[in-house]
Amino acid sequence: MSVTKSGQMNALRKMRAGAGLSFESAPVPAIGPTDVLVRVTAASICGTDLHIYGWDRWSQGRIKPPVTLGHEFSGIVESVGEEVTAVKAGDKVSAEMHLNCGHCHQCRLGEAHICQNLRIIGIDRDGAFAELVKIPASNIWKLDPAIPEHYGAILDPLGNAVHTVLAGEIAGKTVLVTGCGPIGLMSIVVAKACGSSTVFATEINPQRRAMARKMGADVVLDPSSGNAAKQILADTSNTGVDVLLEMSGNPTAIQQGFAALRAGGRASLLGIPTESVPLDLVNDVIFKGATVQGIYGRRMYGTWVQMTALLKAGRLNLEPLFGERTSLEKFEDAFKLLRGGLAGKILMYPDGVPH
Amino acid sequence: MSVTKSGQMNALRKMRAGAGLSFESAPVPAIGPTDVLVRVTAASICGTDLHIYGWDRWSQGRIKPPVTLGHEFSGIVESVGEEVTAVKAGDKVSAEMHLNCGHCHQCRLGEAHICQNLRIIGIDRDGAFAELVKIPASNIWKLDPAIPEHYGAILDPLGNAVHTVLAGEIAGKTVLVTGCGPIGLMSIVVAKACGSSTVFATEINPQRRAMARKMGADVVLDPSSGNAAKQILADTSNTGVDVLLEMSGNPTAIQQGFAALRAGGRASLLGIPTESVPLDLVNDVIFKGATVQGIYGRRMYGTWVQMTALLKAGRLNLEPLFGERTSLEKFEDAFKLLRGGLAGKILMYPDGVPH
Amino acid sequence: MSVTKSGQMNALRKMRAGAGLSFESAPVPAIGPTDVLVRVTAASICGTDLHIYGWDRWSQGRIKPPVTLGHEFSGIVESVGEEVTAVKAGDKVSAEMHLNCGHCHQCRLGEAHICQNLRIIGIDRDGAFAELVKIPASNIWKLDPAIPEHYGAILDPLGNAVHTVLAGEIAGKTVLVTGCGPIGLMSIVVAKACGSSTVFATEINPQRRAMARKMGADVVLDPSSGNAAKQILADTSNTGVDVLLEMSGNPTAIQQGFAALRAGGRASLLGIPTESVPLDLVNDVIFKGATVQGIYGRRMYGTWVQMTALLKAGRLNLEPLFGERTSLEKFEDAFKLLRGGLAGKILMYPDGVPH
Amino acid sequence: MSVTKSGQMNALRKMRAGAGLSFESAPVPAIGPTDVLVRVTAASICGTDLHIYGWDRWSQGRIKPPVTLGHEFSGIVESVGEEVTAVKAGDKVSAEMHLNCGHCHQCRLGEAHICQNLRIIGIDRDGAFAELVKIPASNIWKLDPAIPEHYGAILDPLGNAVHTVLAGEIAGKTVLVTGCGPIGLMSIVVAKACGSSTVFATEINPQRRAMARKMGADVVLDPSSGNAAKQILADTSNTGVDVLLEMSGNPTAIQQGFAALRAGGRASLLGIPTESVPLDLVNDVIFKGATVQGIYGRRMYGTWVQMTALLKAGRLNLEPLFGERTSLEKFEDAFKLLRGGLAGKILMYPDGVPH
Repeated sequence: MSVTKSGQMNALRKMRAGAGLSFESAPVPAIGPTDVLVRVTAASICGTDLHIYGWDRWSQGRIKPPVTLGHEFSGIVESVGEEVTAVKAGDKVSAEMHLNCGHCHQCRLGEAHICQNLRIIGIDRDGAFAELVKIPASNIWKLDPAIPEHYGAILDPLGNAVHTVLAGEIAGKTVLVTGCGPIGLMSIVVAKACGSSTVFATEINPQRRAMARKMGADVVLDPSSGNAAKQILADTSNTGVDVLLEMSGNPTAIQQGFAALRAGGRASLLGIPTESVPLDLVNDVIFKGATVQGIYGRRMYGTWVQMTALLKAGRLNLEPLFGERTSLEKFEDAFKLLRGGLAGKILMYPDGVPH
Repeated sequence: MSVTKSGQMNALRKMRAGAGLSFESAPVPAIGPTDVLVRVTAASICGTDLHIYGWDRWSQGRIKPPVTLGHEFSGIVESVGEEVTAVKAGDKVSAEMHLNCGHCHQCRLGEAHICQNLRIIGIDRDGAFAELVKIPASNIWKLDPAIPEHYGAILDPLGNAVHTVLAGEIAGKTVLVTGCGPIGLMSIVVAKACGSSTVFATEINPQRRAMARKMGADVVLDPSSGNAAKQILADTSNTGVDVLLEMSGNPTAIQQGFAALRAGGRASLLGIPTESVPLDLVNDVIFKGATVQGIYGRRMYGTWVQMTALLKAGRLNLEPLFGERTSLEKFEDAFKLLRGGLAGKILMYPDGVPH
Repeated sequence: MSVTKSGQMNALRKMRAGAGLSFESAPVPAIGPTDVLVRVTAASICGTDLHIYGWDRWSQGRIKPPVTLGHEFSGIVESVGEEVTAVKAGDKVSAEMHLNCGHCHQCRLGEAHICQNLRIIGIDRDGAFAELVKIPASNIWKLDPAIPEHYGAILDPLGNAVHTVLAGEIAGKTVLVTGCGPIGLMSIVVAKACGSSTVFATEINPQRRAMARKMGADVVLDPSSGNAAKQILADTSNTGVDVLLEMSGNPTAIQQGFAALRAGGRASLLGIPTESVPLDLVNDVIFKGATVQGIYGRRMYGTWVQMTALLKAGRLNLEPLFGERTSLEKFEDAFKLLRGGLAGKILMYPDGVPH
Repeated sequence: MSVTKSGQMNALRKMRAGAGLSFESAPVPAIGPTDVLVRVTAASICGTDLHIYGWDRWSQGRIKPPVTLGHEFSGIVESVGEEVTAVKAGDKVSAEMHLNCGHCHQCRLGEAHICQNLRIIGIDRDGAFAELVKIPASNIWKLDPAIPEHYGAILDPLGNAVHTVLAGEIAGKTVLVTGCGPIGLMSIVVAKACGSSTVFATEINPQRRAMARKMGADVVLDPSSGNAAKQILADTSNTGVDVLLEMSGNPTAIQQGFAALRAGGRASLLGIPTESVPLDLVNDVIFKGATVQGIYGRRMYGTWVQMTALLKAGRLNLEPLFGERTSLEKFEDAFKLLRGGLAGKILMYPDGVPH
């Protein structure tokens, strides 16, 4: 049965304020002249989806049910609006799901990823946990034939990692990754592919520490031992690391990360603390002459170009991240595993057949 | 009487642990083969000198009496060590008083200003509040003939201001200076000379606010009113300023400064908080994609080159900063005025004759 | 008579292959849903327009008559397409006349100004030497109320100057501008406004040299004397200038400019040589560790933001550039003056009334 | 027999104006208080040494016989001057053989590698083709234990390669290396280690092309076929490469390299043309908005830090470069092979025993 003929499709949706999601039948999106309709072949679950499932404070303020979730996916173009020329039906694609306004100060400066009027597909409007998703043509990213479907489904978080690692010099630099969730793990791979020297990683979860080693971290430490910063200093001739990639959002990890950062180092912060973080600005930032960067999303579309080039050249082995695969309908199993701390990415298949 | 013949000279010294300074007779420094002996013609008082006078916690940990204070000065070369070729007796000079080790990681990377083994003349060894001061030849800065003596005496703090303002792009940028002490005031002048757009300044002391206007700030606000950040946002189409130059070290000012910073903006922190500062990292740094820079000292010697070029080209009018002038012997008057909140720089003359 | 009612308007057009232009009646452009129709209040003549008038080799290869010229202008929005929200009828505007494709490698990287498929309004399709001009909404630049009409009419070349000057550090730098046509002259003003130190300028035309002095150049030299590079070296302690802004396109000027550039300096090339230029790459670029930048157009739209900020803050006095004003119909007088070497900008008024 | 006791040592020297070198007995260098005397354990031959051997025009103007050649080496500290603290007898070392003055404009700016008064050990004074060589302590580079002797002997040219590759962004970039001599070959390895995407290499010598493949180049082309630029454009969707690393100094290669460079690309020039090179500045640089960088030497000492980090982390496999090994006395064989076009590095052992 063709979903486009029936006009209905399957979708994973938040139907009302409160915890949980439901597998629903929803209308196929109607597209405008500059839109692309994409048949989703594989989708992946972001930490943000877990927050929305759990209906935390942030979700309560931001999400307006009913809405279809999902912003990590790959698919095949089903049809295009009449003014679209860059892609055509049958093309394999993914997409940048952040929509920028195009006319605010940041957009005019080429900083669209921090647009003042940013809206997100899968958060602010219907997303990719569905058989079909509507995306503006400007945001479609045509997949190079060298990029397989499952990599295509995680370009959004990989883009976070690439954006963070390449926000400053990395070649020949020592690196500390604090927090080894999926983006932290990807950052280890990206840093090494781009010529980093020793990569240290800290993580309290032992399964994730094991995964960090598998992804190429040179020294993996348990920060709950309390000696992590001390050991990193010892291993770097008491100088500290050149680059801190903060992926945990945990205040203690942030403080330890700064303690292990060398004078003149770079701290790139992607992890999201849920509360105010007391920083020893004098010793950790000012006297150190350190540079601290807030990292949000991915550069539009410089990061996509970099990421594609690295993947196409075979520099990023992310296979260890992929494990569980399930149909979209069986989403509850996937969410349960992730809430339990699984470090890898789980792929969901809207057509019901993991492939 | 020639001080070098008698072997004794006048100097302003911390003689013992505790508050206060004293005007003393001290031996003329003996110089080595790579040193320069400089006759101090004018010296200026830094906020750090006030801390040492008052014997605060930081001073108690760092200062080892007896020591001659003073690290802002201009003078004339009295004599040079046998291996010194870059300057000769009679040359007008100032000096970078931070001494770097030359072989740590940062020194090798060209980041000598954050050397791991930094020592400071006038803090860690005898300084320039004296008739004569000993400086390594590498740290001597020969004054361009276009730079008058009183400007030569404040190159150290002016270098702080130039380092902070030029740590990122400034041309065509809106700027907020939080805190209008001498370095904050200098930053206003430097920013405008380098093409900044609107300069906002916040300061609780009304005399300093008046001074900020005199130095060229376009909008001067009292942050204690509580509306400063709101007004700055309103004046920038709700976008915020491109650049925050934090000169106060005050936690509330820092927080207000970040609140007024635009997404994608730069925050350069020079002011020194005396305690841990709680930062709303998510909203003020991460989601904003902001860049935060710790600023310490002056680049050795890139900042000196920039500063000299700006002064030589007549771009920096700092005259409003200069007011009181006194002999070194009458230092108590000067310290009293500064502790009272005077925004300008007070020059002290070791030869006893303000000129 | 309302031109939009009659459906015809006046326009300055190239009607056929060969020298010259003609003042014609042409149809008012029909606009699409994302276009803006602008009533041109003042237009300015670019050097490129002179080439097209003269029908040089480049024009013969590029221009397809009939076409209306003109890409420097300011005007008032007459009407907008149904999907346009950023501007409305009555708004004062100018525009970026370079149209980028949005999907090539450079566009994806945020380098739209060097788009692989760039087309130019007033070159490749009908331009602004007319009562009305059609512009895509994305390219419209709303004028800040602080920017007067005549400045609005020269934002295109001013953008070239700002792009060139700010393509690297300028504060505290010595600068050499080779070639004092309008963009060279604007560059002098922009460099000084952004904190440059000494600005040298070379120009063979004595009227333009006089203008360079008026615009603020510190040292103005006649390069035909053959001693220009030597004098610049002498004036910079035999070091050379930090920054070369090449605005002439003349091979001898380019060679002299490189001879006067310091080791480690920046050479930004905007002037367009009409033939291959022999460069002493070893001594002028490689051993010098110099950086050479090709400059084309203006950054879209970073340069527009910078330019607006500088103008709004009153940092750029360009009044000396403005002299002759004429009606569009009397274009022959204006072209004649410019072909004769006039350094200023001539404004033409489509409504026939210089104001 | 201890050379230091006899006061004589073996050295490879240019004794008089004219072609050739000779193996001589020379006095052991006397060291001053800040010098280090190094026992050379392995030395390597630079292309510059071939020029001096052949007594080309450049050599005639620069070399003042008698002088000991050699500026690529590793060794063991024999003794140190009384003021030297950074190294001690027995330490394994190499050295930066470029000596900067410390007080010119470039030195003050942290650009010591383009010092106005640069002198080179092994060119301007006695070098490392000897049993012992004198080096100022500031220029000694202590070898990390992870770096083997033969790698230590080629840090000078490896530094050229690292300096060139890392003079701009490289991660995710397509690269063209024109000229596959030793530094070109090293650049291929460095670029790939630092995350480059496809690396193209052009070289007319078939043995060197084979070596380029062995070092990891993805596409190796013979530029004499005339289609190299065309093929590179075809392989990059008609966009061109992001980065050109010019290592040949050949005017035709330079022109082909620019033809294959994308708009907005970076061209880093290290190869030294022996004549003026006609450049199509308009199409190759200006309209392209390209950045051209002259590269000279290695950053002092930022490049050394990067190079050490990459080697220590095991990122650079340079083994294919090493082949012939000989005693210093049998230098004629080595020079003959290199003049014949051998792409690898030949190690010479002053103690007569290749190890």
